[in-house]
Amino acid sequence: MPDHSSTTIHVLNGPNLNLLGTREPEVYGRSTLADVETACQVACQRHGLSLVFGQTNHEGELVTLLQQARGSLGVVLNAAAYTHTSIAIADAIKAAGLNVVEVHLSNVFAREAFRHHSFISPVAHGVICGLGIEGYRLAIDALASSRAN
Amino acid sequence: MPDHSSTTIHVLNGPNLNLLGTREPEVYGRSTLADVETACQVACQRHGLSLVFGQTNHEGELVTLLQQARGSLGVVLNAAAYTHTSIAIADAIKAAGLNVVEVHLSNVFAREAFRHHSFISPVAHGVICGLGIEGYRLAIDALASSRAN
Amino acid sequence: MPDHSSTTIHVLNGPNLNLLGTREPEVYGRSTLADVETACQVACQRHGLSLVFGQTNHEGELVTLLQQARGSLGVVLNAAAYTHTSIAIADAIKAAGLNVVEVHLSNVFAREAFRHHSFISPVAHGVICGLGIEGYRLAIDALASSRAN
Amino acid sequence: MPDHSSTTIHVLNGPNLNLLGTREPEVYGRSTLADVETACQVACQRHGLSLVFGQTNHEGELVTLLQQARGSLGVVLNAAAYTHTSIAIADAIKAAGLNVVEVHLSNVFAREAFRHHSFISPVAHGVICGLGIEGYRLAIDALASSRAN
Amino acid sequence: MPDHSSTTIHVLNGPNLNLLGTREPEVYGRSTLADVETACQVACQRHGLSLVFGQTNHEGELVTLLQQARGSLGVVLNAAAYTHTSIAIADAIKAAGLNVVEVHLSNVFAREAFRHHSFISPVAHGVICGLGIEGYRLAIDALASSRAN
Amino acid sequence: MPDHSSTTIHVLNGPNLNLLGTREPEVYGRSTLADVETACQVACQRHGLSLVFGQTNHEGELVTLLQQARGSLGVVLNAAAYTHTSIAIADAIKAAGLNVVEVHLSNVFAREAFRHHSFISPVAHGVICGLGIEGYRLAIDALASSRAN
Amino acid sequence: MPDHSSTTIHVLNGPNLNLLGTREPEVYGRSTLADVETACQVACQRHGLSLVFGQTNHEGELVTLLQQARGSLGVVLNAAAYTHTSIAIADAIKAAGLNVVEVHLSNVFAREAFRHHSFISPVAHGVICGLGIEGYRLAIDALASSRAN
Amino acid sequence: MPDHSSTTIHVLNGPNLNLLGTREPEVYGRSTLADVETACQVACQRHGLSLVFGQTNHEGELVTLLQQARGSLGVVLNAAAYTHTSIAIADAIKAAGLNVVEVHLSNVFAREAFRHHSFISPVAHGVICGLGIEGYRLAIDALASSRAN
Amino acid sequence: MPDHSSTTIHVLNGPNLNLLGTREPEVYGRSTLADVETACQVACQRHGLSLVFGQTNHEGELVTLLQQARGSLGVVLNAAAYTHTSIAIADAIKAAGLNVVEVHLSNVFAREAFRHHSFISPVAHGVICGLGIEGYRLAIDALASSRAN
Amino acid sequence: MPDHSSTTIHVLNGPNLNLLGTREPEVYGRSTLADVETACQVACQRHGLSLVFGQTNHEGELVTLLQQARGSLGVVLNAAAYTHTSIAIADAIKAAGLNVVEVHLSNVFAREAFRHHSFISPVAHGVICGLGIEGYRLAIDALASSRAN
Amino acid sequence: MPDHSSTTIHVLNGPNLNLLGTREPEVYGRSTLADVETACQVACQRHGLSLVFGQTNHEGELVTLLQQARGSLGVVLNAAAYTHTSIAIADAIKAAGLNVVEVHLSNVFAREAFRHHSFISPVAHGVICGLGIEGYRLAIDALASSRAN
Amino acid sequence: MPDHSSTTIHVLNGPNLNLLGTREPEVYGRSTLADVETACQVACQRHGLSLVFGQTNHEGELVTLLQQARGSLGVVLNAAAYTHTSIAIADAIKAAGLNVVEVHLSNVFAREAFRHHSFISPVAHGVICGLGIEGYRLAIDALASSRAN
Repeated sequence: MPDHSSTTIHVLNGPNLNLLGTREPEVYGRSTLADVETACQVACQRHGLSLVFGQTNHEGELVTLLQQARGSLGVVLNAAAYTHTSIAIADAIKAAGLNVVEVHLSNVFAREAFRHHSFISPVAHGVICGLGIEGYRLAIDALASSRAN
Repeated sequence: MPDHSSTTIHVLNGPNLNLLGTREPEVYGRSTLADVETACQVACQRHGLSLVFGQTNHEGELVTLLQQARGSLGVVLNAAAYTHTSIAIADAIKAAGLNVVEVHLSNVFAREAFRHHSFISPVAHGVICGLGIEGYRLAIDALASSRAN
Repeated sequence: MPDHSSTTIHVLNGPNLNLLGTREPEVYGRSTLADVETACQVACQRHGLSLVFGQTNHEGELVTLLQQARGSLGVVLNAAAYTHTSIAIADAIKAAGLNVVEVHLSNVFAREAFRHHSFISPVAHGVICGLGIEGYRLAIDALASSRAN
Repeated sequence: MPDHSSTTIHVLNGPNLNLLGTREPEVYGRSTLADVETACQVACQRHGLSLVFGQTNHEGELVTLLQQARGSLGVVLNAAAYTHTSIAIADAIKAAGLNVVEVHLSNVFAREAFRHHSFISPVAHGVICGLGIEGYRLAIDALASSRAN
Repeated sequence: MPDHSSTTIHVLNGPNLNLLGTREPEVYGRSTLADVETACQVACQRHGLSLVFGQTNHEGELVTLLQQARGSLGVVLNAAAYTHTSIAIADAIKAAGLNVVEVHLSNVFAREAFRHHSFISPVAHGVICGLGIEGYRLAIDALASSRAN
Repeated sequence: MPDHSSTTIHVLNGPNLNLLGTREPEVYGRSTLADVETACQVACQRHGLSLVFGQTNHEGELVTLLQQARGSLGVVLNAAAYTHTSIAIADAIKAAGLNVVEVHLSNVFAREAFRHHSFISPVAHGVICGLGIEGYRLAIDALASSRAN
Repeated sequence: MPDHSSTTIHVLNGPNLNLLGTREPEVYGRSTLADVETACQVACQRHGLSLVFGQTNHEGELVTLLQQARGSLGVVLNAAAYTHTSIAIADAIKAAGLNVVEVHLSNVFAREAFRHHSFISPVAHGVICGLGIEGYRLAIDALASSRAN
Repeated sequence: MPDHSSTTIHVLNGPNLNLLGTREPEVYGRSTLADVETACQVACQRHGLSLVFGQTNHEGELVTLLQQARGSLGVVLNAAAYTHTSIAIADAIKAAGLNVVEVHLSNVFAREAFRHHSFISPVAHGVICGLGIEGYRLAIDALASSRAN
Repeated sequence: MPDHSSTTIHVLNGPNLNLLGTREPEVYGRSTLADVETACQVACQRHGLSLVFGQTNHEGELVTLLQQARGSLGVVLNAAAYTHTSIAIADAIKAAGLNVVEVHLSNVFAREAFRHHSFISPVAHGVICGLGIEGYRLAIDALASSRAN
Repeated sequence: MPDHSSTTIHVLNGPNLNLLGTREPEVYGRSTLADVETACQVACQRHGLSLVFGQTNHEGELVTLLQQARGSLGVVLNAAAYTHTSIAIADAIKAAGLNVVEVHLSNVFAREAFRHHSFISPVAHGVICGLGIEGYRLAIDALASSRAN
Repeated sequence: MPDHSSTTIHVLNGPNLNLLGTREPEVYGRSTLADVETACQVACQRHGLSLVFGQTNHEGELVTLLQQARGSLGVVLNAAAYTHTSIAIADAIKAAGLNVVEVHLSNVFAREAFRHHSFISPVAHGVICGLGIEGYRLAIDALASSRAN
Repeated sequence: MPDHSSTTIHVLNGPNLNLLGTREPEVYGRSTLADVETACQVACQRHGLSLVFGQTNHEGELVTLLQQARGSLGVVLNAAAYTHTSIAIADAIKAAGLNVVEVHLSNVFAREAFRHHSFISPVAHGVICGLGIEGYRLAIDALASSRAN
C-alpha cells in the first residue's frame, strides 16, 4: 500500500535509457537521462517531495530497486524493454504494494507490435506514454495530487 | 498539422460518458461529466487557452466533431467504447491532421481483454490512462506545453 | 439496478429490423416489425405491464435508448448486427444498470462465425435465440416472472 | 424430423445436474433437480403434453437417451459440461432428427471462456440461457407453440 | 434483387470521405468528393442512367441510405472505415437485396492489416480497389453493362 | 505389438453408428450397421480370419473394447465423433499396442472443420475415409495383407 | 468443502490406468495399478487414514466417483486422458466441494502439447507430476498434513 | 517502373484458366479463354494498344512471363490459384517493376477462406474481382487511362 | 463428372516420388516407383481396367496431367509435398470433374504438423494413407467397385 | 546426470521470494523465506542430506547457481516469475545435467493465463505446485527417494 | 549422406534471381547473378573444388536440380521465394541426403513477416543471411572446411 | 554507425556458453569457449584486427557489453537463450548503432519452436547458424570484408 504520509517518489529507468540523447534521437529525443533527472527534481521540489532516481540495465536490479521503493508515495517507472517481457517486475510491484505510474517516452502503440503489450500496465495505477520527458513531470504531478485525496 | 498559434483545445467524449458519476462508480469514480468540463475549463484558463467541450453517443458524430477540431492546438479524446472498435475515428484524426492525447479515466489494461487494444493510440500523440479526471488536466498541460516548443 | 416496482418493459431493436418480413424471409420469417410490436403488446398486457417499443439503425441511438430505459423492469434487446461489434451498447447496459434479456430471431450459432460472439451476452441476464417472434414473448414472460421473485 | 402429432417432450440433463441445489448455489440457485422435474411436469400438463425426464453423468448415455427421443415433439436439453466438449451428442441430435431447445440455468457467456462455445447450438432449434428453472418452462412453451404452427 | 429496368445508380460514401482532397493526399489523391460526384454524373449520363450520390459519417445513416437504394439498378459503395468493422452495413445489403460494387480509392491490401478484411466483400457483386476515382467510373460501367445481360 | 499369428480382426464402431441407414442418409448412405457387419464377415472369411464386431455410444466402453483387442491381428476402428475429442481412445491404442486402421464412412475433410482433426490418426497404422462401407473391406484387406509381410 | 474431521482419502484413476505396468513402460514404469493401491494403502495407514481406491475407463463414472467422495478429507485424482478433455470432471470437483491433489505418473509437460493443458488443475488444490508412484504417496502426505492445519 | 510511352499490355492467366467455360460454369461462367482474349483484343484496339496474351499452368512460367512484361504499359494478371500461394509471382512483379491490375472472374471473398488472401494484391496497383470477363476490360481501361496521367 | 463407362484409371505421383526406394526408406519403404507402377498394373488388369501412370516434380505439370485425366473412371493421386501447398491442383480436380482417391504411402498424420493439412482432401472422393504401396491397390479397388454402383 | 552418491540438495528461489510472508499473503501465505529454509533443513537432515539454499532476483544469477549445482543429488527450483519467461534457466538445467523438481507455492494454474506455461517443466523431472511450503518438503522427499532407486 | 570425397559443390538459385542487379537494388545490391557465379568459381578454386551453378524460376526444376546434386560435397541453396512456400524442395533435400547451406542475400528477418519462415532451414546444415554475395563465399568455405573434419 | 576505421571486433556470448564442451555435446559439439576464443583470435589476427571477447549469464550485462562495443568495427553476437526472449538486447544494438552478425552454433531452426524466433535478427546485419565454431570465423570474415567496402 502506498504510504500517503511519505514524501518520497522513486523514478526508476530500465535498460538502455542510460544512452538517452544519443540513442535513436528521432524516436527518443535529444535530452539525456541527466536532463530527465533534473526535470524530475524540479517537479518534486515544486510539490515538496524528495526524489530517488535510478537506472539499471538489469531486470533483477529493477526488481530490487522496486522492492526498495516500498512505503514511498509512489513510483514513476519506465522499464523500457523489460515492460514487454518481465513478469518479475510486475510481481515486484504487487509484492511491494507500490503505487506505480508507468511512463514511456515514445508512443509505444505506434511502434513494433511486440511493444504494444505491457506486463506492468495491469498492475500499475496509470499509464502515460508518447509525451517525452513531459510524461515524467505529469506522472509526478499525478502522484503528488493523489497524496491530497 | 496542429496549428501552434491556435489557442483552442477540444475535449471530446464518447458514448456513456454522459452518465459519468452514476455509471459504475467503483470503476469510473463519482465525478460527473460537468465536473470534468469544469476541471478542463480551469486547466485551459491557467494556460490562457479556450475550450471546446463535447460528448456524444454516436461514432459518426465523434468523427464530425474531430473534423471540426481541425486547426486547433490539440484534442483531448476519450472515445470510451469506440476506442476499441472504431477505425472511422482513427481515420478522422489522420484526415484532420489532429494532435490528439488519448485519455481514459480507468486503467483499461487492468480490465477486460477487449479494452486492451485501441485503434486510436497508433495515431495519437500520446496516451494517458488510469488517472481519473486528473488525466484530462495532465493532457491539457501536455498540449499547452507542446505549444511552447 | 432494475426497479421491480416498475411496470414498464422496453423492447429495443437494432439495424435492419425495420425491414423484417421483407428481409431474407427464409432466415427471419415473414412477420413484420409491427407484428413483433403487437405480440409484445399482447404479452405485456397479459402481465399488466406497459411497453416501450423502439427500433433504430444507429448504434449511438441504441445507446441512448438503453440509457432511457433506466429504472424499467427490464429490457428485451435484439441489437441485430451491433450484437457482434458494439462495446458501446454493452457499456450502456452496465452504465444504466439494466436487466436485459438478449433476443435473436434466428439461431445465430447456426450462421456465420462472426455471429457467434456477442458483446452483450456477458452483461445480459439471459439469452434467447432461434425461436422467432416467440422469443420476444418468452423474454417478456421471463422479465415478468422475475418481478414476482 | 419432429413429429408434430406427438405429445411427448423429453427433458434431458447432463453431468452433475443431479447435485443441483447443493452445487455452487450462487451460480445455479437452490432448487433441486426434482424441483426442475416438477416445474416441467406442470408446464407439460398445461399444454396437454406428457413428459420424459432424465439425467445422466455419462456422455454415451446422453447419446442413447437422445436416440430414444426420436419421434417426440421435441427435446429440452441441458447437456451441462458436455455442451462444450461433445460432438457425439450433437451428432445424436442430427442422427435422430430431433427438435431441440438447448437450455442452461446460468448465463454461460458470463462465465469461463471454455463455456462460450457449444457444439449443440448449431444443431439446436433455439437456445435459452441464464433464466434459471424458468428457462425450462419457456423451452417447453416454445416446443408446445411450435406444435400449433 | 436488383431491378434491371431501373435506371438509377446510388453512389454512397462513408466516413471522412467528405474531407477527400485535403485528407492524406499521398494516399487518397487531390480530387475532392465533388470531383467524384461530377465523374459519376458524367459516367451515368453516358449510360443514360440517373445518379443518387451521398456521403455520411454515420454507420446507421449508411444503413438507411442502402435500404433506400432498394430497387435501384445497383450501388457503388465506398464504406471507408466501416468496410472493416460494420456487419450492419453488410446486413443492409442483403436485407435490401442490392447489387453492390464495392470501391476503394486506395489499394487497401497495401495498407494496415486491419484494412485487409471487408465485411462487405462477401455480399457484394464485385470489388474494385486501388484505382482512385477511375474506380468509381469502372464500377458504374460494370453496373451499366450488367443491365444489358 | 500386433500378433501376426493371430487370426482375429476387431471391427469397432463408435457413437450413433447404431443408427446407420436411418441417420442422414445423404451423408452416410442407406446401409445399416448390420450390413457393415455382414460385409466385414465376408471379407474376413475370404482371408480366413475371424471377426469380432462391436458398437457402443460410450467413450469408456470403446476404451475397454480396444483393450480387449490386445493380441489381435488388427483393429478396424470407426470411432465416429470420439475421433475428434478422445485422447482416452488414442491412449488405449498405444497402451494395448494395437495395429489400427482408422475408417470413416464419409470424407471427414469435406465436412465441418472440427472433423478435420483426429486424435486417433497419429497412433493409427493407416487411415481410410470417404469410401463408405467399401472402406471397411479395404481396411480388412490391408490388415490381412500385413500378416503376409 | 473438505471435512477435516474425515479420515478417508479417495484415490481415483482414469482410463487405461488399469493397464499400468504393461502399458508403455518406458513412459509409465513397470509397476501395476495394484502396486499403486498397495503404496497408497501403506501411506494412508501411516497417517491413520482409510483409503477408497478406484479406477474406471468412463468419464461419467469418474464424475460419479468424485460425487461420492463428498465429505472426504481429500481426493488424489489421476484422471489420465480425461485430464485434458473433461469439463464434466472439473465441474464435479467444484460441485462436490472436493479438496483434490491432481497426480500424473509421467511429466505431462515433457510430452505432446495436448497434454499440457488440464481442465482439472484450476479447480485442484495442488498438482504433482512426473514423480511416478511416489507422486501418489506425496499427495496423500499433503492431504494428511492439510488436516493438521 | 511502367513505361508510359509503351503501347503494350500483357494479359496473363494462371492455372486451370485454359479450362474456362467448361470448368464449374456456375462459378466462372460459360465464356472460354478464347472469348477472354477476344474481349481483351477489342478493348486494347479501342485504346490503340497492342496485346500480349498468355496462359500457363506453371508458377515458374508465370514468373518468366511477368519478367518478360518489363517495360510494358501494364499487366492484367489473373494468377488464379497461385494468387493465394505464390510469393515468387509477387516478387517477379516487384523485380520487374510492373504496373499490375489483379483480376479475378469470381468474387474470391465470397468463396473459401483460403481464397481471401492474395500475395499479389499488396504489390499490385489495383484489384478488380467478381465482375467476370468485364473485369478484364475494366482493367485494360484503367491501365489505358493511367497512360494519360 | 467421372465417366463410369470409362475403363481407364490414372495414377499420378508428385515430387520426389521418383526417388522412391532410395529416399528415407524408414519412412517410405524400399519399393521403387517402378514397383508401384507394376502393382497398379496388376490391380488394374484384375479389374479389366487400363492404367495411365505418371510422375512429375512440377506442380504445373501435375495440373496438366490431371486435366488430361478428364473423362477417366478415376484418379489415384499421391501429390506428395504439393498435397499441403497447392490450391492449383485442388482446382484442377474440380475443374476437370475428377473422381480422385488421394493416397499417401506414409501416415502423414504421424509426421510434421505441416503435413496434416491437405488442400486435396476436401475435393477428393476419399483418402487412404499409411498403408504403403498397398494403399495404391486399395484405391484402385475402390475406384473399380464404384464403377459397379 | 545427477550423481546419486552425492548427498547435497540445492533449493533455489527466484525473484521476489525474498519478500515471502509480506507479499500478497492471501496468495503466498504468511511464512517467510527463512521459514522455508528451516523446513528444507529439517527435511534434508531427516534424509541425511546437506542443503544449499539460495535466492536471487537475477535471472543470470539463477543460471549461475544452477550451473554450480552440477553433480548434486538434485535441485528444488522455484524460479517464480522467471518460470514463465526464461529459456536461459531451462538451458542451464540441461547444460548442467540437473535432476530438478520444479516447485510453486501457489497453484499457478488457478491464476493468470501467463502463469500456465513453464519453460522449466519440460526439462524438469517433476513438478509440484499449490501445496505451499509443504511442496518443498515433498520435493526433497522425492529427490531423496530417487537416490534409493 | 554427403560424400566427403566428392569435390563438387552445387550452387542453386531460385526464382527472380536471374534479375539480380536490376531487381530492387536497395534490397539486393547491384551485383548480377554472373557476378555471383564468378565469386563462387573463385571460392571453389581456392579450395580445389569444382562448381555446378544453376538458376531456375521453377519449383519443380529446383527439385530436380537438387536431386541431381546427390553425392556432391554440398549445396549452397538460395531458393528465394520458394524458401517460404515449398515443402517439395525441403523434401528433395532429405530425399537426396544433401548437405545444404541455405543462403539469402538480404536479411530476411528484417523484411515482411512471410519471409521469416523457411521450410528449408530445418533440413539444412546451416543458414547464412544478410551478408550479400559474401554469404555465398562463406557458405562455400563452410562446406570446404566440413570436408576436412 | 559502425566506424570502419576501427580495428576492433567484439565477440560476445550469452548464458550457458561458459559450459561449452561439456553441455549437451551432441547439440553443441566438444569445443570449449576457450577454443572459440582462440579461433576468433586467429581469425582477427589474419585480418589485422584486435579482439574483445566476453561471456555472461546476465541479460543486463550483455546489454552493457553491447553498449561498450559502440564505435567498434562490428560485433559477433551469440546471445544464446536471450536471443529468443530479450528485447533489451535488441534495443541495445539499435541504441549503440552496432554492426552485428548474429551467430548460433547449432541450427536453431531444427530445434524447439521457441528457438525459431529471434528478437535480434531484425536489427542484425546478418545471421549465421548451424555451422559450429566455424560460424564465428565466418562472421569475423564478413565483418572484416565489410571494412573494405
